[in-house]
Amino acid sequence: MFKKTDDSLMLHTDLYQINMGETYWFDGIHENMAVFDVYFRSMPFDGGYAVFAGLERIIEYVKRFKFTDSDIEYLREQGYQEDYLSYLKELRFTGNIVSMQEGEICFNNEPLLRIEAPLIQAQFLETAILNIVNFQTLIATKASRIKNIAPDEIFMEFGTRRAQEMDAAIWGARAAYISGFDSTSNVRAGKLFGMPISGTHAHAMVQAYDDEYTAFKKYAERHKNCVFLVDTFHTLKSGVPNAIRVAQELGDQINFIGIRLDSGDLSYLSKEARKMLDAAGFPDAKIFASNDLDEATIINLKQQGCKVTAWGIGTKLITAYDQPALGAVYKLTAIADDNGVLQDRIKISNNAEKVTTPGKKDLYRIINNKTGKSEGDYITLAHEDPQSEEVLKMFHPIYTYKQKWVKDFTAKKLLHPIFENGEFVYDQPSLETIRQYHQDNLELIWEETKRYMNPEEYPVDLSTACWENKNHKIHEVADRIKEWES
Amino acid sequence: MFKKTDDSLMLHTDLYQINMGETYWFDGIHENMAVFDVYFRSMPFDGGYAVFAGLERIIEYVKRFKFTDSDIEYLREQGYQEDYLSYLKELRFTGNIVSMQEGEICFNNEPLLRIEAPLIQAQFLETAILNIVNFQTLIATKASRIKNIAPDEIFMEFGTRRAQEMDAAIWGARAAYISGFDSTSNVRAGKLFGMPISGTHAHAMVQAYDDEYTAFKKYAERHKNCVFLVDTFHTLKSGVPNAIRVAQELGDQINFIGIRLDSGDLSYLSKEARKMLDAAGFPDAKIFASNDLDEATIINLKQQGCKVTAWGIGTKLITAYDQPALGAVYKLTAIADDNGVLQDRIKISNNAEKVTTPGKKDLYRIINNKTGKSEGDYITLAHEDPQSEEVLKMFHPIYTYKQKWVKDFTAKKLLHPIFENGEFVYDQPSLETIRQYHQDNLELIWEETKRYMNPEEYPVDLSTACWENKNHKIHEVADRIKEWES
Repeated sequence: MFKKTDDSLMLHTDLYQINMGETYWFDGIHENMAVFDVYFRSMPFDGGYAVFAGLERIIEYVKRFKFTDSDIEYLREQGYQEDYLSYLKELRFTGNIVSMQEGEICFNNEPLLRIEAPLIQAQFLETAILNIVNFQTLIATKASRIKNIAPDEIFMEFGTRRAQEMDAAIWGARAAYISGFDSTSNVRAGKLFGMPISGTHAHAMVQAYDDEYTAFKKYAERHKNCVFLVDTFHTLKSGVPNAIRVAQELGDQINFIGIRLDSGDLSYLSKEARKMLDAAGFPDAKIFASNDLDEATIINLKQQGCKVTAWGIGTKLITAYDQPALGAVYKLTAIADDNGVLQDRIKISNNAEKVTTPGKKDLYRIINNKTGKSEGDYITLAHEDPQSEEVLKMFHPIYTYKQKWVKDFTAKKLLHPIFENGEFVYDQPSLETIRQYHQDNLELIWEETKRYMNPEEYPVDLSTACWENKNHKIHEVADRIKEWES
Repeated sequence: MFKKTDDSLMLHTDLYQINMGETYWFDGIHENMAVFDVYFRSMPFDGGYAVFAGLERIIEYVKRFKFTDSDIEYLREQGYQEDYLSYLKELRFTGNIVSMQEGEICFNNEPLLRIEAPLIQAQFLETAILNIVNFQTLIATKASRIKNIAPDEIFMEFGTRRAQEMDAAIWGARAAYISGFDSTSNVRAGKLFGMPISGTHAHAMVQAYDDEYTAFKKYAERHKNCVFLVDTFHTLKSGVPNAIRVAQELGDQINFIGIRLDSGDLSYLSKEARKMLDAAGFPDAKIFASNDLDEATIINLKQQGCKVTAWGIGTKLITAYDQPALGAVYKLTAIADDNGVLQDRIKISNNAEKVTTPGKKDLYRIINNKTGKSEGDYITLAHEDPQSEEVLKMFHPIYTYKQKWVKDFTAKKLLHPIFENGEFVYDQPSLETIRQYHQDNLELIWEETKRYMNPEEYPVDLSTACWENKNHKIHEVADRIKEWES
């Protein structure tokens, strides 16, 4: 299938990284330390919060940072010269990465990861890190939005067939689980991540027997846990009655979990089916539904008194249908000069939101000890310690008149060391721990920020020193442009 | 990273397939031959045509159809019984698959692939085949729409960082190339598929030097082919003048291909930059652009006289942003009875478009020998041969009064044998051949069907025999429902 062995992800990067790397290397600045921030500029789905995911895959990717023989051979065919190739062949990751934990609640314009590494290494990492973070964070966010419409109900990820190829299916299933989904239908995701899987049967089984009663009965003879799909022929005239008949006939031999609706008016059908199940003596049988559902549809159905309490979510989750890309970027914030001293860098833009925040920075969540809720996130220069302040001044980085003073707070550091001088130093949590971490940390956020429509904006502020540093740099560049204009 | 080795794609399927398989196996019908069609119901992007892709990956997947030890071990942990696991362990693919060629122009409600295999095998394949076809066909279609806005200009796939995880990036790059894109920025896609790659430098390089002129010059010293990214500080005051200065200073030492715009008003900036390049003696220098572009933006820019002729397309292509999922389905159309005779199966619905077309079928493109253009696609029962007809009656399968009689035609068979009795029998074309095939076949389709907005609907008709068989089945089921109602 492939022209060369698919034995490495080192070339899973944009060609310009390899070309810039060559320039740096040829010019001798390739090993100057550089600092890059990973962040996104606007909240996905017009939501109030996002959920960080992707770190586990990034760790594996960085651990294998090494051009293989087939990589070098391919680059040679592209015309790169031997001296550069020899350098690449020996290249290993020697830098530092700090990152949020997976499952962390996160916001726009704050660093999710910070990469500090020799310039050439940091550039090579950019594309793959963004590819991973953008997708997994997007799906974890979407899943959290959906799950939190009905936190006590069951949510199952059913999207593999509509996912954007195979990696999206399995990493998307994992991201959904982090954010509180209960299971996936993808068996490989269960095998690889140890997460719960779910699924019973499809329309094809009913069609194969061409007799719904027989199909249900055959299924029940071999499977203890039964959820019958009831809409192959006629939900209320055929499907539900046949499910009830089989459940009554087999009694304790099976665990009749419930029925699944996959088409039609879910509100009406679920209410009618509920009555039929209750009347037949199955008040505990659940009604499952699946059919292009998302948070908006579920709210709408619930408002109509829909009796579904177990939700199979496919396309709309696994592709983040209403916003299928998160725009996380990877921006240079500082680079060492020839003496090894970091010099801050900025990229300006006519759009204030697009101006980068220069300097090596840290990120804290400022938790009010009285309410137990977060007052906002607080970006500092790396040497600052907000916890040492008695009273913390927090202000909006653009509309600076929006300000408050916070006392009696805990400054929780959000970026954790993952690699130090190339060594992996992180104590990696289990998937269950990550999932619990997400749930616990949702509690720190006010409900007003978490509602799914028109949420209250969560403050992501800069420390005074960080803000002043940014403004100083902005004016430096503005002065340069003034010179060009004249 | 993983709980078990990721050594197989057999479990890249929905759990219900494994459970249904167990029912069939326990009941002894698992090896009855079954026929499934893969098709989608509505045209993506409200377009007039789609482009089939995904076959190469499906072939590799089917060739490796075998549960590995780690698969079996995982299923055992899930509680499946040893007798079923022993059966699965020995299972190999023994069926037939026919498929469209990659790059084929395709339409809704016609079979893209037909799987004819022992029931249990055919079910296991469903999820992965849909996962592959849905994504790759979606991206090939989107790419063809974009490329055909300006078939003579350069289109580069730049989307990896926004792709939905890694598989989407590389298979999406390949799908775009099939549909006429010229290159990808993803180096791994180049390595694996042997397709052209492109890219020069990013803003980070200009920031690293903090002096645009120096950055361009350093790049040019090591790279013959130069496209300078000119919007880091100020496109017209700094970027374009610095690009011109370096190009003039280095003269023949470099191949000054052009400049790239990545922000701002691409129409205005490109027109101004064009004037500056022309005045400086570089009339052949191209203007590249990238920045959330798609077919609609490009048409709009062109209408304004935009001077860009080389387009880097990212997010909107690689995620198919305006419709990030294709809804291809996998539907049972026939299953063998205990005597091994295929019995047709139908699934009905209140929505006429959702009623399946029963029976083992074939698909032809009816090409008018006079015009060289297609009159439509024609679905037959498998034993029919439309080429043997003197005059072919073609009619709309729902609005049957829309009909025409076609003479002097070539019936081109669109489904080709890929696997026969489990053996791979296909002469796999190279990627270049597939790409050329797509271009050649676009010619068969009228312009009115190919326009990007409000296209003319392309006929996908059923043969009279196929139509009558479907209606007969519909009435059988309707009669059954009537019984339930009474």
